[in-house]
Amino acid sequence: LKDFHSRRFVILGVGLIGGSVAAALRRAGRVKQIVGVGRSRANMERALALGVVDLVAQDAAEAVLGADVVLLSVPVQQNARVLAQIAASLPPDCLLTDAGSTKRDVVANLREFLPDRLAQCVPAHPIAGAELNGVDAANAGLFVGKNAVVTPLPENRLDAVERTEALWTACGAVVTRMAPEHHDRIFSAVSHLPHVLAFALVNAMSQREDAAELFRFAAGGFRDFTRIAGSSPEMWRDIALANRDALLADIEAYREQLAQLAGMIADADGSAIEAVFSRARQAREQWLRGTKS
Amino acid sequence: LKDFHSRRFVILGVGLIGGSVAAALRRAGRVKQIVGVGRSRANMERALALGVVDLVAQDAAEAVLGADVVLLSVPVQQNARVLAQIAASLPPDCLLTDAGSTKRDVVANLREFLPDRLAQCVPAHPIAGAELNGVDAANAGLFVGKNAVVTPLPENRLDAVERTEALWTACGAVVTRMAPEHHDRIFSAVSHLPHVLAFALVNAMSQREDAAELFRFAAGGFRDFTRIAGSSPEMWRDIALANRDALLADIEAYREQLAQLAGMIADADGSAIEAVFSRARQAREQWLRGTKS
Repeated sequence: LKDFHSRRFVILGVGLIGGSVAAALRRAGRVKQIVGVGRSRANMERALALGVVDLVAQDAAEAVLGADVVLLSVPVQQNARVLAQIAASLPPDCLLTDAGSTKRDVVANLREFLPDRLAQCVPAHPIAGAELNGVDAANAGLFVGKNAVVTPLPENRLDAVERTEALWTACGAVVTRMAPEHHDRIFSAVSHLPHVLAFALVNAMSQREDAAELFRFAAGGFRDFTRIAGSSPEMWRDIALANRDALLADIEAYREQLAQLAGMIADADGSAIEAVFSRARQAREQWLRGTKS
Repeated sequence: LKDFHSRRFVILGVGLIGGSVAAALRRAGRVKQIVGVGRSRANMERALALGVVDLVAQDAAEAVLGADVVLLSVPVQQNARVLAQIAASLPPDCLLTDAGSTKRDVVANLREFLPDRLAQCVPAHPIAGAELNGVDAANAGLFVGKNAVVTPLPENRLDAVERTEALWTACGAVVTRMAPEHHDRIFSAVSHLPHVLAFALVNAMSQREDAAELFRFAAGGFRDFTRIAGSSPEMWRDIALANRDALLADIEAYREQLAQLAGMIADADGSAIEAVFSRARQAREQWLRGTKS
């Protein structure tokens, strides 16, 4: 794998992810100049003060002139607007990548707004913490040892794909390549569905008449189980909508799984219940052992 | 509230809970003699060696002779067998309490095996960690600041109820009194349902053809969400069966909640989705603030 280097690295949206990519690449000595673009003047001044970026700009179309790499890291519902802004000025050989949690939606945006630039547009998704927000939480080590999934388009030039992979490798991530649709199916199952389940449970509890009493007796297991229901409602609304097809299929399969388990409980079929619980525990323990090694 | 004291405190089943009650009461100077009863000679020798109990016995019927308090803390599926054993020898004025996670089942057992002793049988449930097992994990501080629910029977003498409450207060717990059926409905919602949901999710994932790939991309959110799926399958099978009615109602209500959310996603109704997610996050944050204060 060749090393990643950039002369003029432009970050559209300097929050936790964009800021951490900047910090990681700078620490690794892979970038000459980092330009941060954002609409909030206060946030951009903060990014400058923290040394995360060298220059700031408010106009994305102007900022991408002269860029050799552009990272799209605004909240995903702004992707279309920002891509429309830069479509006319993005240099022809400039690499464009992103960091969103879903990939089919950004692929559709790229096809709509940058149809002539698809060779150089390579979507990606670094799997890193979403509990904190904003450039103040940015840190150079955020991606170290974490997965980053690169989801090439058929139109991509191979060297653009490899450069994108090198970018995330330079940030310390473990890079995997897969199709955008495949990515969205996997993350529906391991991330989007669990978030929906946790939000649904806490919401249902909060609307019961005995909610106050229920929360009074909720303990540590409930706290861990619902931790992801503390995530950003806006971001997860967008993810649920962006990954609608895969997520709806997974919700339906899960409802069916619950119906089966309810049947076992109704039948007082202790050995079937125990088999389900045991398989779950074993699979989880095997997974934990694997992630530690 | 009067202080709890016991001359001869008999613990049927000396594991994490029974052992911790013994340690807590001894530390508080509330017991003269603690007798541990269990079928595993090795475990009982361990309890003796740790100083958790003063005496050990294998025969429950004999051990309860001369007791003024008996704590039933065997795995719940053994409750019936143990209650049958002690029925003939339990002293008439001896207090009997337990520590199980469900209460309607033990009430049924008490009515079946000790119908003449119901005045002195007061079920209870201390809400304390189930991640560790065995007398080696026992500690005097396990219940400090935790909830303990006491679920009296209509037949109970008031002084037996108050003595049971004093017992858990002496262990450091915050005691609440409620009816057994009410207890089971609350803990179905805040504990039993979440466990079932976590077990069901991990089981379903483990049975997919792409299970290995899914687990490879599961991250911290998944780990927390599924932590309770690392709990004992046998214990949770028993809880699911013991609290069948409340749990089945909660599973069905939750499936309906998921169907509604799926409908919002299918309709791409972003504001409805965000409202659900926001209510959940707010309720959880409010709860966390409350538990800290």
